[in-house]
Amino acid sequence: MLTGGMKGESSVEATMVERGVNVPQSYRLVRRDARPDRTVVRLRTGASFGGDELAICAGPCGVESHEQLHRAAEGVAQAGANVLRGGAYKPRTSPYSFQGLGEEALKMLREAADAFGLGVVTEVLDPRDVEKVASYADMLQIGTRSMQNFPLLREAGDSDMPVLLKRGLSATVQEWLLAAEYIVLRGNDNVVLCERGVRSFDVATRNLLDIAVVPLLEELTHLPVIVDPSHAMGIARLVPPVAIASVAAGAHGLLIEVHPDPPNALSDGAQSLDCAQFDRLMRRLMPVAEFAGRRLPQRADRTDGVVSARGYEA
Amino acid sequence: MLTGGMKGESSVEATMVERGVNVPQSYRLVRRDARPDRTVVRLRTGASFGGDELAICAGPCGVESHEQLHRAAEGVAQAGANVLRGGAYKPRTSPYSFQGLGEEALKMLREAADAFGLGVVTEVLDPRDVEKVASYADMLQIGTRSMQNFPLLREAGDSDMPVLLKRGLSATVQEWLLAAEYIVLRGNDNVVLCERGVRSFDVATRNLLDIAVVPLLEELTHLPVIVDPSHAMGIARLVPPVAIASVAAGAHGLLIEVHPDPPNALSDGAQSLDCAQFDRLMRRLMPVAEFAGRRLPQRADRTDGVVSARGYEA
Amino acid sequence: MLTGGMKGESSVEATMVERGVNVPQSYRLVRRDARPDRTVVRLRTGASFGGDELAICAGPCGVESHEQLHRAAEGVAQAGANVLRGGAYKPRTSPYSFQGLGEEALKMLREAADAFGLGVVTEVLDPRDVEKVASYADMLQIGTRSMQNFPLLREAGDSDMPVLLKRGLSATVQEWLLAAEYIVLRGNDNVVLCERGVRSFDVATRNLLDIAVVPLLEELTHLPVIVDPSHAMGIARLVPPVAIASVAAGAHGLLIEVHPDPPNALSDGAQSLDCAQFDRLMRRLMPVAEFAGRRLPQRADRTDGVVSARGYEA
Amino acid sequence: MLTGGMKGESSVEATMVERGVNVPQSYRLVRRDARPDRTVVRLRTGASFGGDELAICAGPCGVESHEQLHRAAEGVAQAGANVLRGGAYKPRTSPYSFQGLGEEALKMLREAADAFGLGVVTEVLDPRDVEKVASYADMLQIGTRSMQNFPLLREAGDSDMPVLLKRGLSATVQEWLLAAEYIVLRGNDNVVLCERGVRSFDVATRNLLDIAVVPLLEELTHLPVIVDPSHAMGIARLVPPVAIASVAAGAHGLLIEVHPDPPNALSDGAQSLDCAQFDRLMRRLMPVAEFAGRRLPQRADRTDGVVSARGYEA
Repeated sequence: MLTGGMKGESSVEATMVERGVNVPQSYRLVRRDARPDRTVVRLRTGASFGGDELAICAGPCGVESHEQLHRAAEGVAQAGANVLRGGAYKPRTSPYSFQGLGEEALKMLREAADAFGLGVVTEVLDPRDVEKVASYADMLQIGTRSMQNFPLLREAGDSDMPVLLKRGLSATVQEWLLAAEYIVLRGNDNVVLCERGVRSFDVATRNLLDIAVVPLLEELTHLPVIVDPSHAMGIARLVPPVAIASVAAGAHGLLIEVHPDPPNALSDGAQSLDCAQFDRLMRRLMPVAEFAGRRLPQRADRTDGVVSARGYEA
Repeated sequence: MLTGGMKGESSVEATMVERGVNVPQSYRLVRRDARPDRTVVRLRTGASFGGDELAICAGPCGVESHEQLHRAAEGVAQAGANVLRGGAYKPRTSPYSFQGLGEEALKMLREAADAFGLGVVTEVLDPRDVEKVASYADMLQIGTRSMQNFPLLREAGDSDMPVLLKRGLSATVQEWLLAAEYIVLRGNDNVVLCERGVRSFDVATRNLLDIAVVPLLEELTHLPVIVDPSHAMGIARLVPPVAIASVAAGAHGLLIEVHPDPPNALSDGAQSLDCAQFDRLMRRLMPVAEFAGRRLPQRADRTDGVVSARGYEA
Repeated sequence: MLTGGMKGESSVEATMVERGVNVPQSYRLVRRDARPDRTVVRLRTGASFGGDELAICAGPCGVESHEQLHRAAEGVAQAGANVLRGGAYKPRTSPYSFQGLGEEALKMLREAADAFGLGVVTEVLDPRDVEKVASYADMLQIGTRSMQNFPLLREAGDSDMPVLLKRGLSATVQEWLLAAEYIVLRGNDNVVLCERGVRSFDVATRNLLDIAVVPLLEELTHLPVIVDPSHAMGIARLVPPVAIASVAAGAHGLLIEVHPDPPNALSDGAQSLDCAQFDRLMRRLMPVAEFAGRRLPQRADRTDGVVSARGYEA
Repeated sequence: MLTGGMKGESSVEATMVERGVNVPQSYRLVRRDARPDRTVVRLRTGASFGGDELAICAGPCGVESHEQLHRAAEGVAQAGANVLRGGAYKPRTSPYSFQGLGEEALKMLREAADAFGLGVVTEVLDPRDVEKVASYADMLQIGTRSMQNFPLLREAGDSDMPVLLKRGLSATVQEWLLAAEYIVLRGNDNVVLCERGVRSFDVATRNLLDIAVVPLLEELTHLPVIVDPSHAMGIARLVPPVAIASVAAGAHGLLIEVHPDPPNALSDGAQSLDCAQFDRLMRRLMPVAEFAGRRLPQRADRTDGVVSARGYEA
């Protein structure tokens, strides 16, 4: 027999153990009982994650132009979002795909967000860019492909910026919490977890949304959790019902792709809502948020009159 | 090279095609546009799947005794369920696990359901048992491990009983719909689909609930879809939030394991609600059902006074 | 909080346990140390699984006609196979796909096998067909979709026929061994396990061949294990190198789809070798078998002269 | 209906497309027909990947001490390896696990490799470390968690060092090849692909080795592919048969964890061979390499007498 010559090893059966069992110490700082209260992460623009108010992050997949971003920011602000999302540095599977406009996009994000009273969350891919991104944004997004990019996690942990940590493509909940532990261990407590679907055998949707992690994480950690139904679904039409379900299950917020003109988006057009669709979704969300004991973001009255406080009539 | 001698075959790249591409014809009868209206499946006891009223199927994993079943039936009926679930023939991974009480359990199910005005749904494993199970039950359940048990699908299709077709452990949506097509093709239109989670790489929950199939199936088929959060989660505490999310996403009903004494259940105790927990869940569900444009089952006043109509006060 | 009202339940974390942990007793009869020697399964035609000689099962996916089968049987026999495979009852994802010729195909299999000195392995889908299939075949195949078809497993266990038990689409090794335990527990020890790839997120190949189970099962069980590279790959060109790797890893045999005219096969043409390709593979296999301490099937001299003993020159 | 208000969107079914379909352009530079000959990647120490000679990379998971590394290097060199592996910067799931000795480990690797005539392959995690790692090593390893770390891929592409690109935890073959394309597009052709198992639902082995990619990649790309059975298996006893199978399937080399004292390793002890086990594996590999049309690394006679040319007697 092929392996016959190897003596003295423990039997395979004895070592058939659960994956990750060799993680010597588990997460300590992010576990639920490490803190008497739950963490509430607050952006300087006022949005918060983890409290009574939902955080609604919306905007285009990628920042494409000043005009595109301005229209998106206006649309999502009017519908009631409080954080603008948009990619300046894009992690793209192919080197031939649109890679983002970089620092130019960061400037546009800041301007558009300021014009409509929004916070900015945007992805940082490179540990060398953390400082630069932090100088424009209100929250650093660490994307799916970077969940176990440990130098990036450490750099984000060394900054004082809120961090949105997306779940890896096939990360277990334990691995995800340990990635958050890397950030918190460096002294940065402001971490929000974002479920965005995991890889599955079925190609009917882009990813498989693991909605159970919403109540599961509430048991396991004091960190807030939000849901990104856009990347989970990959199909715009499925985004609203899944967003609603996520809030009903207890999510502290949503991250949704909204583009003023999805058919002409440079990336992720198929899964982007247009502004009117997003507005309808926000109206549908109001009673669900209330049911879950939360409320949609409160809009301060704005003196420039661009956005009026809305009543969220059903 | 190892394969070098084989000439004349098309390149691998050319044949790198999507799984299932060799399904020559897709589902015809179950597809959404095959029927002007959506299918509403009605049990003779009055419960319906696919209409304005939710179907709430609840009860123990396995039928263990007359007393256990009677208490479960009473509990779920009082809480507002309209269908009693319970296993008479149990598909168990191990031959040494409790395999169910067989026909004795079928009799108990019928009696307990009748005592409390409930329908009966129970699994049939063997095509030779279809007639027998149909003589006691109101709905045949075809379980996860049997989704592609084609002789069983054909036998169920030849009966005139409503069928609850659970999704296979790692079945694609297309495969699931084609399994339903097997039944409908034999002339039995009364098929309800049941999502119960798929197999995943993460062991944090028993299975991974694919909540997106609720709105996706609404696009693809005229058949109703319900959700089984108990088998999806494997942990009782996670069942209520996921049940709520499912109804918010548009599910036509729920299948929930309820046991009068979960710690002493012969199977699936860890994922079973007790009767009080189920009652609390039902109260929470009322506003969610309303939000989704549906209502919980209506209870007829019962003259025997065992169950009084409840007001579903929040 | 959604689940806040539920008191007294153990924490989720405490119950985050490995899947399958609720299997009360593990496999006893099929485990390695249940028997001093390894099981060798012998067909009445002389082929054996688990000894020094490999079992080479080859033939078409489905039996389509007398002529097709005769050509396939002749081709695989001349190349050195000792068991003829071919589907009489076909489990097909779609009800509109070719479902097999049934008993007519069983007769053809017997005739073709007898003409060339081969054994017959063919799938049985329905517990009601076990006796009939057993009356024609030398080995019952229980297919991937039936691995947890417990009535079928019991029926196969009650017969005295060798059984080829394919791994389920996403079955763990533990579940697979427990399925074998169902058969052996009924008194039928003649079980051979067949790895045929599991479901994966990647569509580059039809399934993902789990070659590690070959040495893993050698540790865990006394039952022999063979590999079906055809269903694992879904692409004929990849079958030979993977077949070779399987034998090098210690597999006790192979199950390979061979069709005299793959482009015109009614099923699985894309993954079928033609007879010349199969012959080249068998020649390649000879030194690999020798390396693994095994040999290709010995052919008895045949008096009818149809098949001459071959020298397996490299 | 929840989504009913959204008009004008294409049907879900029409957009049910294969994952990755939105990759606008596929890999161009790494595809098989982009180059008349296959790529052979040569280290300055003489080892090559992709030619007639196998590359055998072996050594400890992490560099722990000068003595540990020296013993490992001596052991693998005497057994016939030609590249020393060892982690200086360790990507660890938990921040509390051993993270590697950094530059100190790089120096030790260089010294130990030079003492025994070996090349050095070691992982680089941070784009800022590429230059430093390149100054000590002969080949940069980009690990599983970094396969889509695009800044790191670009930095590796800008260097002139050979790169070992491991497959992501659940990366498709297409995504893997596109990651390689990132490197080659920057002008660095010296890329070797390394299969190390993908994430699976079964916990019987640490990962699921996808052996089919060996022949598949030979069709799709001109780049060489090697296999890491240690991380695929997670269990030392399974490493040899799977290593043998990989070479039989056509792999251009192996990456194997070897530790002089596995029970006391700081990481991955359970999957590490000791030096004697590795030596036995190398002896087993000789006839398999020959069968596959390749040979084990040729050892130059060394004047310092530390390692004598070995005869690889079986």
